[in-house]
Amino acid sequence: MKKLELSKRIEKALRIDPSKTEQKLVAFVRKKVKAAGATGTVVGLSGGLDSSVVVALCAKALGGKNVIGVSLPEAGVTSPHDVADAREIANRFGVRFKVVDITPAMAGIRKNLTDYRVGALLPTANLRPRVRMVILYYYANLTNKLVVGTGNRSELRSGYFTKWGDGAADLLPLGRIYKTQVKQLAYHLKLPKHLIEKKPSAGLWRGQTDEKELGITYEKLDMIYAGLDLKLKPASIAKAIGVNINTVKNFIERERKTSHKLAPPEMPKL
Amino acid sequence: MKKLELSKRIEKALRIDPSKTEQKLVAFVRKKVKAAGATGTVVGLSGGLDSSVVVALCAKALGGKNVIGVSLPEAGVTSPHDVADAREIANRFGVRFKVVDITPAMAGIRKNLTDYRVGALLPTANLRPRVRMVILYYYANLTNKLVVGTGNRSELRSGYFTKWGDGAADLLPLGRIYKTQVKQLAYHLKLPKHLIEKKPSAGLWRGQTDEKELGITYEKLDMIYAGLDLKLKPASIAKAIGVNINTVKNFIERERKTSHKLAPPEMPKL
Repeated sequence: MKKLELSKRIEKALRIDPSKTEQKLVAFVRKKVKAAGATGTVVGLSGGLDSSVVVALCAKALGGKNVIGVSLPEAGVTSPHDVADAREIANRFGVRFKVVDITPAMAGIRKNLTDYRVGALLPTANLRPRVRMVILYYYANLTNKLVVGTGNRSELRSGYFTKWGDGAADLLPLGRIYKTQVKQLAYHLKLPKHLIEKKPSAGLWRGQTDEKELGITYEKLDMIYAGLDLKLKPASIAKAIGVNINTVKNFIERERKTSHKLAPPEMPKL
Repeated sequence: MKKLELSKRIEKALRIDPSKTEQKLVAFVRKKVKAAGATGTVVGLSGGLDSSVVVALCAKALGGKNVIGVSLPEAGVTSPHDVADAREIANRFGVRFKVVDITPAMAGIRKNLTDYRVGALLPTANLRPRVRMVILYYYANLTNKLVVGTGNRSELRSGYFTKWGDGAADLLPLGRIYKTQVKQLAYHLKLPKHLIEKKPSAGLWRGQTDEKELGITYEKLDMIYAGLDLKLKPASIAKAIGVNINTVKNFIERERKTSHKLAPPEMPKL
């Protein structure tokens, strides 16, 4: 197949019917909450794309009053614009909204980490999503709700999340759709354009962006995964979408290496 | 089969060959650490039976200097005797030992929990194992080690652990052996008798004991599970070991209801 045809096939594979997808995801959330005997859901609202979509889906599934959106800012890390965007989304979908500043929690944890190294960026950054998880589960336990995570399929396949942090939730409604597909869903849900087009960030440190850390745009990354879903060879994918073959191979390897992050702890066979 | 025969069959099923079990678990830890390219393991050392056995297994698998045992006490919750016992075990097996007091971490987290209710015992208690997990992973990330959890099969089957707390680890070497079997292994490993016979506690609050919370002794609980492993009927098990049939049924139901606690987050089918 020619390069142009292949790239069109890949692009086509990434197009969703947003109305059908919305229906399925809303039904999924409703069914799982009912099956668990829970009173609703708790969602960490970052002011970014994924968590806004998740809150919208939860509100449609359960009614806004049964959903708690929690903004978890940290001084010096989180932009006040993000908290404002989170609040706007909560208001728009009529969900309960809380702001829990995690600055004291982070300070309390770091206080007794005797080996705390200033240079250790990632171990410290990983504390944040885990602390956020701890707080979301506190409210979930307190109110008998499920924690709904916001990870999408692009993040899950590339292992771009913190094990037992943002990866730890009861439900992951976006877990089977890629970032660019979440975006299509967001336009369908009529989320504010500035929020949909905001640079994706896991909020690991001030100014952090996903695409800089991943070394690739989500658009290209999703095309790699769609190509793999279509059983295309790495060389064909690389050519069709205009990336180096090693980039494709790196993300195949990365998926293998990080698959433990969503798996249950390993146990011996006896 | 007569009651006496049945109860003997159950007791027999719970007897392990501790020397063989030790070999298998040591080999499991060694193999998984190597496969992950990790430099060793991090273990939360509570001063109780399970974590002492896990530290012993890790030290035998990797050498003490590649193992970090972390005691995570909290003022008003943890007994100083437990920290002393943890230190004794660390010294005995030559592993690196740290004490990280989680009191400031707990205070920092609770500070901004606006809905903090004094009466909400369990949501607050669940914070503790999660905070311990966060700190263990900090050291694991910092030193490229795996976190080895201490959950045993009795706890896992009864769902008696905190989701994303003590249930969150890279490896669970005791995950396939019951509490009473861990005890057999501990005697074989020559752990101090007072520690082996200490009342099991998840350290959820001051004076908390597992058996009080579970409403059954581990001895009886393990006999229920061993009976189920032998495909015996609930009524036969109840009769053989001298418990009410509803107790057996409750633990069957409990296993079903809590199985989500070790499973990956649920995702929709699309």
